[in-house]
Amino acid sequence: MLDLWYTENHTDNVKFSIKTNEHILTEKTPFQQIDFFKSEEFGTFFTLDGLMMVNEKDEFVYHDMITHVAMATNPNIKKVLVIGGGDGGTVRELTRYTSIEQIDMVEIDERVVRLSQEYLPITAGKLEDPRVTLLFEDGLAYVKNKEDGYYDLILVDSTDPIGPGEGLFSHDFYNNCFRVLTDDGILINQHESPYYPSYAHEMKRAHSKIKGLFPITRVYQFHMPTYPSGHWLFGFASKKFDPLKDADLDAWNALGLKTKYYNTDIHTGAFALPTFVKEMLDDATE
Amino acid sequence: MLDLWYTENHTDNVKFSIKTNEHILTEKTPFQQIDFFKSEEFGTFFTLDGLMMVNEKDEFVYHDMITHVAMATNPNIKKVLVIGGGDGGTVRELTRYTSIEQIDMVEIDERVVRLSQEYLPITAGKLEDPRVTLLFEDGLAYVKNKEDGYYDLILVDSTDPIGPGEGLFSHDFYNNCFRVLTDDGILINQHESPYYPSYAHEMKRAHSKIKGLFPITRVYQFHMPTYPSGHWLFGFASKKFDPLKDADLDAWNALGLKTKYYNTDIHTGAFALPTFVKEMLDDATE
Repeated sequence: MLDLWYTENHTDNVKFSIKTNEHILTEKTPFQQIDFFKSEEFGTFFTLDGLMMVNEKDEFVYHDMITHVAMATNPNIKKVLVIGGGDGGTVRELTRYTSIEQIDMVEIDERVVRLSQEYLPITAGKLEDPRVTLLFEDGLAYVKNKEDGYYDLILVDSTDPIGPGEGLFSHDFYNNCFRVLTDDGILINQHESPYYPSYAHEMKRAHSKIKGLFPITRVYQFHMPTYPSGHWLFGFASKKFDPLKDADLDAWNALGLKTKYYNTDIHTGAFALPTFVKEMLDDATE
Repeated sequence: MLDLWYTENHTDNVKFSIKTNEHILTEKTPFQQIDFFKSEEFGTFFTLDGLMMVNEKDEFVYHDMITHVAMATNPNIKKVLVIGGGDGGTVRELTRYTSIEQIDMVEIDERVVRLSQEYLPITAGKLEDPRVTLLFEDGLAYVKNKEDGYYDLILVDSTDPIGPGEGLFSHDFYNNCFRVLTDDGILINQHESPYYPSYAHEMKRAHSKIKGLFPITRVYQFHMPTYPSGHWLFGFASKKFDPLKDADLDAWNALGLKTKYYNTDIHTGAFALPTFVKEMLDDATE
């Protein structure tokens, strides 16, 4: 019997390996290498340039946490921009809100979307929602060319800041995000991890840039078992709303959305950060 | 150059590997196999029966969380029993409280303690504190023979419920813990993890046993990168004190203890559990 293992180097000295039943496909696009696998433990998963992006077992954690914290903070969000997010899971969670009128998803690599539609319907299944527009272009260029004050919410569902995701961790990008957000606007940023030094370095760089732009910035954490260290963060940045003081948690509960990770206790609890993470964020300069 | 990797099977289908500089020693005791290693990423670490127990990089997370939540809930704790905890890290955190008068540590395997004293002074360095008594015997038998209402706090710092740790997940053990606790008593239990099914199974079993005994039971979570999935839990059980309603967090802050993971935001935030964990705990029957 075939004994096939996918291995990711979390650092030069730490490896995480998953037994796979099948290497479904490998494809090199102009942007990156995409590989899809089947596995017993995590179901179907795919990697970009060899790094785990999405799997059927824990995708709910990431997609709950990128979406519902902002939506509970401001229930009047109508226009949403997703940057990256080619697997479709973030869009899927957004489409559950009938109050949202427009979802623009800007993904640089169309092949990630098409392959997810074929092999990962669990995440990509709502990309045909009539409110969704798919734009296959560079997110950095997209926000640069967009008019002022258009979106109520931007979700940066990016890869790590190497390869095609690099520009999404730049000053220029966050500046333009600020500009294209309405006065009520919220930005959620894939904020990397505080544990292994190389990830912590990127976390600090992203955070210090965002802190310099937005009047309200906070960071929240969640458990993502297949990402390096399992300790992952999103940055919350906003022009007006504080996720703890302004969130209407009762209103969110009244929506009756069924979720597997997020709930209104987690909404508050996720912003309670370990001391070593607080210290890193407080000290963050570029 | 030697290319030596320690690998732990988190499940049959998931492996976690650490590059090691040196396999310091391997020793078979009447209870288990002990191995000490040096590594670049995690410093010195040791395994019991091949499973990661303690390493220099993230031991602070576990030892902060097993100790400070209970101590902030009831600052009048005087007599503490530690079951297991042979590396000494839990005792180290307890000795920081001048208010604690007596710390009894019952560890079945003296060799874990002696080797930790030799190779892991970072955790074992406070075992000589005059308030500490080391007892090398079976924790289950110890609590069975102990008088009623003796300890204010019991910390169950056990291995997984296989091998020598098995009896520490039994009805008999938790019953006796309840009995030897004072009316103010608190029990903190190493509660395993909700993510991979075999760990989640043990979490549910332990939780349902404790729930049947104590009037107040809660569960809190933390990020432990070197344990399977990185998502780990402690059970909080008590006869009188609720960790959220009764904790005097200002009093804890006034102590001025410097910690790297625990803080009084985390105290509250850690009890906010993901929906899938809440559902598992609510449904837990044996």
